[in-house]
Amino acid sequence: MAKMNFKEDRPSEAQCKATLNSVADALYVIGGKWKLRIIVALKDGTKRFNEMQRLIDGISAKVLSTELKDLELNGFIRRNVFTGTPVVVEYELTDYADTLGDVLQTLSEWGAMHKEKVRKSMKRKKPVEM
Amino acid sequence: MAKMNFKEDRPSEAQCKATLNSVADALYVIGGKWKLRIIVALKDGTKRFNEMQRLIDGISAKVLSTELKDLELNGFIRRNVFTGTPVVVEYELTDYADTLGDVLQTLSEWGAMHKEKVRKSMKRKKPVEM
Repeated sequence: MAKMNFKEDRPSEAQCKATLNSVADALYVIGGKWKLRIIVALKDGTKRFNEMQRLIDGISAKVLSTELKDLELNGFIRRNVFTGTPVVVEYELTDYADTLGDVLQTLSEWGAMHKEKVRKSMKRKKPVEM
Repeated sequence: MAKMNFKEDRPSEAQCKATLNSVADALYVIGGKWKLRIIVALKDGTKRFNEMQRLIDGISAKVLSTELKDLELNGFIRRNVFTGTPVVVEYELTDYADTLGDVLQTLSEWGAMHKEKVRKSMKRKKPVEM
């Protein structure tokens, strides 16, 4: 557990600062536009590079390659090379990536809720003709 | 709720794609290096610009200003101007920002856990002299 340094006079600011630091630590490794999306794309099983690029809308081969290396370095994914003909390279999640389960769950629930809210507020502004 | 279009032959890929889209939707509005950190910084009450800049390590005034406008536009924060002398501008969270509670909770718990793991693995590599 993270140790918190509570200043006795302003505990709420110190608590806030501790949460802030933890959120910053999390975003440092899994923040950015693609990392969590790559992890979600691998959730239902191992995939090859091209499969992943097809699944994740808008990612370029260069960015996907960089992000995969980064994720491998941080222990979230494993790169398996099968040296047959042709050589097959597959990516899979490690057990450590499973620790992100709750984060992904809450993020995807919130995302679905937010999209619905945006959709509704757009309907209010632009009533559909009947 | 988000409607999922399950292809009957490959439900797991379709489910995965739906989660992917929701996570992408979430990251579209609250992703990036600063947005969630700004929201956390406002969690214990309204703050002025300078207070926020002091609380969030490494953010520049220019970036903070852009991010605040963006968050205001998306309905997460409110900007209150008190026209006394001197003019005081305060930022506070809206009720809608509260919907991010679970996201922030899981992210900060994961961040604290990850930091601890990194700390431990560094200790193993570099034993402390006694």
